[in-house]
Amino acid sequence: MLNKESITVGQLATGQALDVPVYRYNQGRPGPKVYIQANLHGAEVQGNAVLLALLERLKTLEVYGEVTLVPLSNPMGINQKSGEFTLGRFDPVTGVNWNRQYLGDHIDVEAWLDANPELSGDALTHAFRAHLVEQCETRLVNPWGVSTGQHLCYRLQALAHEHDIVLDLHTGPKSCRHLYCPEILKAQASHLNIPCVLLMPNEFAGALDEACFHPWWQLQQALAKRGHNQAMAVQAYTLELGSQELIDIEAADQDAIGITSFLGNNGVIADAPAPAKMDRYACLLKDYRKLHAPGGAMVEYLAPLGEPLKAGEPLARLLKLEQIGQGQVVETLNLPQDAIPVLHFASAAVHQGTELYKLMTNYYKL
Amino acid sequence: MLNKESITVGQLATGQALDVPVYRYNQGRPGPKVYIQANLHGAEVQGNAVLLALLERLKTLEVYGEVTLVPLSNPMGINQKSGEFTLGRFDPVTGVNWNRQYLGDHIDVEAWLDANPELSGDALTHAFRAHLVEQCETRLVNPWGVSTGQHLCYRLQALAHEHDIVLDLHTGPKSCRHLYCPEILKAQASHLNIPCVLLMPNEFAGALDEACFHPWWQLQQALAKRGHNQAMAVQAYTLELGSQELIDIEAADQDAIGITSFLGNNGVIADAPAPAKMDRYACLLKDYRKLHAPGGAMVEYLAPLGEPLKAGEPLARLLKLEQIGQGQVVETLNLPQDAIPVLHFASAAVHQGTELYKLMTNYYKL
Amino acid sequence: MLNKESITVGQLATGQALDVPVYRYNQGRPGPKVYIQANLHGAEVQGNAVLLALLERLKTLEVYGEVTLVPLSNPMGINQKSGEFTLGRFDPVTGVNWNRQYLGDHIDVEAWLDANPELSGDALTHAFRAHLVEQCETRLVNPWGVSTGQHLCYRLQALAHEHDIVLDLHTGPKSCRHLYCPEILKAQASHLNIPCVLLMPNEFAGALDEACFHPWWQLQQALAKRGHNQAMAVQAYTLELGSQELIDIEAADQDAIGITSFLGNNGVIADAPAPAKMDRYACLLKDYRKLHAPGGAMVEYLAPLGEPLKAGEPLARLLKLEQIGQGQVVETLNLPQDAIPVLHFASAAVHQGTELYKLMTNYYKL
Amino acid sequence: MLNKESITVGQLATGQALDVPVYRYNQGRPGPKVYIQANLHGAEVQGNAVLLALLERLKTLEVYGEVTLVPLSNPMGINQKSGEFTLGRFDPVTGVNWNRQYLGDHIDVEAWLDANPELSGDALTHAFRAHLVEQCETRLVNPWGVSTGQHLCYRLQALAHEHDIVLDLHTGPKSCRHLYCPEILKAQASHLNIPCVLLMPNEFAGALDEACFHPWWQLQQALAKRGHNQAMAVQAYTLELGSQELIDIEAADQDAIGITSFLGNNGVIADAPAPAKMDRYACLLKDYRKLHAPGGAMVEYLAPLGEPLKAGEPLARLLKLEQIGQGQVVETLNLPQDAIPVLHFASAAVHQGTELYKLMTNYYKL
Repeated sequence: MLNKESITVGQLATGQALDVPVYRYNQGRPGPKVYIQANLHGAEVQGNAVLLALLERLKTLEVYGEVTLVPLSNPMGINQKSGEFTLGRFDPVTGVNWNRQYLGDHIDVEAWLDANPELSGDALTHAFRAHLVEQCETRLVNPWGVSTGQHLCYRLQALAHEHDIVLDLHTGPKSCRHLYCPEILKAQASHLNIPCVLLMPNEFAGALDEACFHPWWQLQQALAKRGHNQAMAVQAYTLELGSQELIDIEAADQDAIGITSFLGNNGVIADAPAPAKMDRYACLLKDYRKLHAPGGAMVEYLAPLGEPLKAGEPLARLLKLEQIGQGQVVETLNLPQDAIPVLHFASAAVHQGTELYKLMTNYYKL
Repeated sequence: MLNKESITVGQLATGQALDVPVYRYNQGRPGPKVYIQANLHGAEVQGNAVLLALLERLKTLEVYGEVTLVPLSNPMGINQKSGEFTLGRFDPVTGVNWNRQYLGDHIDVEAWLDANPELSGDALTHAFRAHLVEQCETRLVNPWGVSTGQHLCYRLQALAHEHDIVLDLHTGPKSCRHLYCPEILKAQASHLNIPCVLLMPNEFAGALDEACFHPWWQLQQALAKRGHNQAMAVQAYTLELGSQELIDIEAADQDAIGITSFLGNNGVIADAPAPAKMDRYACLLKDYRKLHAPGGAMVEYLAPLGEPLKAGEPLARLLKLEQIGQGQVVETLNLPQDAIPVLHFASAAVHQGTELYKLMTNYYKL
Repeated sequence: MLNKESITVGQLATGQALDVPVYRYNQGRPGPKVYIQANLHGAEVQGNAVLLALLERLKTLEVYGEVTLVPLSNPMGINQKSGEFTLGRFDPVTGVNWNRQYLGDHIDVEAWLDANPELSGDALTHAFRAHLVEQCETRLVNPWGVSTGQHLCYRLQALAHEHDIVLDLHTGPKSCRHLYCPEILKAQASHLNIPCVLLMPNEFAGALDEACFHPWWQLQQALAKRGHNQAMAVQAYTLELGSQELIDIEAADQDAIGITSFLGNNGVIADAPAPAKMDRYACLLKDYRKLHAPGGAMVEYLAPLGEPLKAGEPLARLLKLEQIGQGQVVETLNLPQDAIPVLHFASAAVHQGTELYKLMTNYYKL
Repeated sequence: MLNKESITVGQLATGQALDVPVYRYNQGRPGPKVYIQANLHGAEVQGNAVLLALLERLKTLEVYGEVTLVPLSNPMGINQKSGEFTLGRFDPVTGVNWNRQYLGDHIDVEAWLDANPELSGDALTHAFRAHLVEQCETRLVNPWGVSTGQHLCYRLQALAHEHDIVLDLHTGPKSCRHLYCPEILKAQASHLNIPCVLLMPNEFAGALDEACFHPWWQLQQALAKRGHNQAMAVQAYTLELGSQELIDIEAADQDAIGITSFLGNNGVIADAPAPAKMDRYACLLKDYRKLHAPGGAMVEYLAPLGEPLKAGEPLARLLKLEQIGQGQVVETLNLPQDAIPVLHFASAAVHQGTELYKLMTNYYKL
């Protein structure tokens, strides 16, 4: 019922293959296929602990379909240290964010439908899925090659495309739990135990959730234009489960419980727990604002994360030690408008322009 | 005739201002305003030597208008070492390429023309220029702040917008001289002593040349639609003058001579030397291809740079020392189609997917 | 009563001077000279907040002598980011720990005494101090130059040598408060509010405390051999005040109070608070052990810091996600002998050999 | 005749083993055992090409004994990129130079001889060798663990200790060929085709050559004190074969030829070529001087490498672009005394204190 495979997502200069473990768990019952990936950004390790806790929970539940678990999904990012911390957010050679290199916006859905007029229903879903997988694989054997990050992302994406539900487990730097959720799937957000929900437009900006979700949305739109109503075959989300550089097994189990609730709502688990009763807040992605450091400083972060705060309340204190005796040494940075602080920067020393906080504005209760 | 100023482009965590020197040179005669910036990418130092050589040459020539020289334009990028080399291509915090953070595609030119119906000719040029500068400055005082890279880029851009000709001096990693030239200005490319010319579409992708050039092209198009033919007021180019991590004063002087020829063609220098007689090749930017490493390896680079090469000719040897006795240890990588290799990667050890070479395909002689 | 100066400790590639602010505070009464430096390691920012809090407290107390405060002492280290964190522990070019580049073991004390037979008492102290300062300054003007780190350290050291009491404020990665104290000064440790005390031998290993303390110890020994008993003129300590990458103003004030108690014990403050009643533990530096990761893993740190723990108690859980279904996935790492965990590694992902914990063994209550 | 093994020198956070290939080549004839390692510093890749060329040459020659080739000896260092270059000189977590973590100065040779009074001649050599190997292995299974770098170095060292001749192949940053040679073995230096020779004292400072050579020198000294003259069983050298970040197969073959000459002189090859007729210069290690940058600057390196230069000749030009119009913009740095420049820094942008050049002073012709 638990099967282990691995996929090769790259090769290092020394010739060593970059392999990622892939665990497939099922109980032999038909049902949806679920893909859950963790640790694409190297420092965001907590998702691995969540996968482990989830697997233990699944073994005690009645599972339909299959759950594919992919921990440690970016070996190069995870193993790349710079000082004591993991420099795993971007390719150290190019600087490109590992989570912006998936394949998207590359399919002319109208043309594809025109070329496949005989397809409908499950056959159409099946063929479109195969087309998505094939697009990834074709690019991987391109004679000009693809970049290191594309190699990683296309391999993972080809695997993810075989699934109906895709969850990509990340964390913030110092962060409360939050969810990136496609706008048209926002009803699903109440089935996860995550207080802050960012509603993504139906666009592709390079991330896995978008890469998995967006072509199916395009397909649905194109079919609707042709007078066919067909439900989207695939859902995809990014879950940000706390802070980076931290393994917390107890918190991981709590997050695993939340995921079982969500899977229960989607026909994967028969006896899943109900989602927690809790306040959940949402805002549009365009209202998820970055507050940049107004100057270079040492920073004491003050604002609690995940809770509504009023305009004018203090977010942080900025210390300017070079100003002692001649200027303002401690400056309080206040909230420019009502907002929920979701995450703050990881370090207490910032250059001007550093993303100090990300905050939900124009939010509402779900 | 030489005036020194400085602009502040950021502030470090210790409170230290990031200042960039700005030299303005003129001989008191009216004429175009020229802006030349160097070393935005930290390792690309040679442009500084070119600015110094150019200033010496200008002093011996008959100059019209004013030439603004901005060396050391990115202090944070230049001063950021990682090991012996300069890690200056991207913000070390975010990974974002320093040369992709300029402001662009933000002006609704039609709306601006509608709002300014009384303007035409020089007044229109003057007002549009002021609008471009103001757009940069407004964003710099945004209460939410801007990123570290935007702070740098918007400051430089506000200054560059005051000029008629903008040259941004870069280098490749290991590279022959090449030029990024807007397609509609390709006639100008023959006045620089640069063998390889990449013709950019009229689009904005984040770089300084595009940020300076593209709004004027939009303005010209909008005016043409309204039946007004008006020449573009601004030209902008990126010059890639050799290889990074290298100062070569003799080569810098040669490049300075080429720039004087170009300035001569544009009314800035009365007694400029003629451009060199040399083969110049051009291709469209979409035909400037990256060849990625097919696997991890040690690399011996073989192909000469800046010269046409036939399909099948050797580009590099890939050594796989871990294969001795059991596989192919030395693999020759051949050119997939006729092309001119323009640059290759800086290091001899590459992961799978590394950009080994950039090559001009479908090129032609200018 | 508060005087600001600055010293230049280096120059960046762009020509920018690396300046460090130096604040001298006194109330015009005679007394000892105290030097307190913070943030030599770039990520260890909390000492700056302690200096600020201490200055505020001093203003309310009766101060004898002068207190020199040097925050932000290593601008290059503080400003060197690599990803979101500060890569400030070592020179990014050479890898050499910034706190191992002070000057020491360079004075032949016997020869110096032989050359200065007329000196004794305060005159001897004064001349020896001047000799120490001069040694630093001579090296700074060496025609072969000194390294970047030596430039920084010798400048700071020349200043520190002018003082009678030297405190170097550091932090651990994730750490409880601890103190590096010369063995022969261990009686002083009870006047600071720091639970863990590491007793250093009278040797020089490159750090500031040793560089300041050790020559005076050598002098005392040499004088004793000649039959002169003379108290050591200089004390020096390193205080590790909590964790890196964190500013906590409330905790800083608590640490400032502790420092005033210590200064009170040394004649600098007349009305200082008594040291806190608390358990203080000490061990010899040779008994301060590193526990290295037995393999690569994700790590959940379990052990509380600063408290005695019995052999066999759990320190950490090591997660090996690649082992699911085929090996031990969660391994508990237990304490090999009775010890007090003082600090643990900052990141939750570790390669084999990473310093997971540093622990006091063979400790005793002070 | 060619046998491949591998050794595991560490484990990454993702669980991946760090394996190093080990090739043993012999022709079945008795003779010395030779160990040649390459690429311990990650950017110093050329030694790999030399090993490959040497293996090809050995196949055409009459070989006695066995030659063990260890390319790619530090996978973590080789695979650690930071920007386009390889950050392979030091552990990215700790900053410690990979080539300063070998085991040495740990054996009390007198005590060991006392404990083994029955041994002499080959039996003594054999037992001492076994003791050296065992010392490495014992530390690797220490319950407190060893550091990441020690894990790597002790594994390699245990292997190297089994051999009679140890060559460690490195490169400089930008460098001419040079050799680190134990003073008492300087006669051997004339059998390699390397122009610059640095004569090392009989001390241990952390590098492989010292770690392999020094205990045998200690043994010889101790035996001599007891009235036994016994030749040292082991020789060890570090060869610096050109510049880092470069694979040059033609140059590698030239270096392979030189190594065959050396091996011929030591009974490993019967039909080896004679060493090249060339000028060879030597100096004591204490006379191998570093010239540090007197200020931050852009640098044009001028001095040819590997050739005697007179005091006062130009080494480099320092450009200070921020000084235009107000100070000395181009400063020439001249040689302070007669010397042979051996290597210079890799980057053209330097902070104050950067090691610009390393030079042989007080040199003489071998």
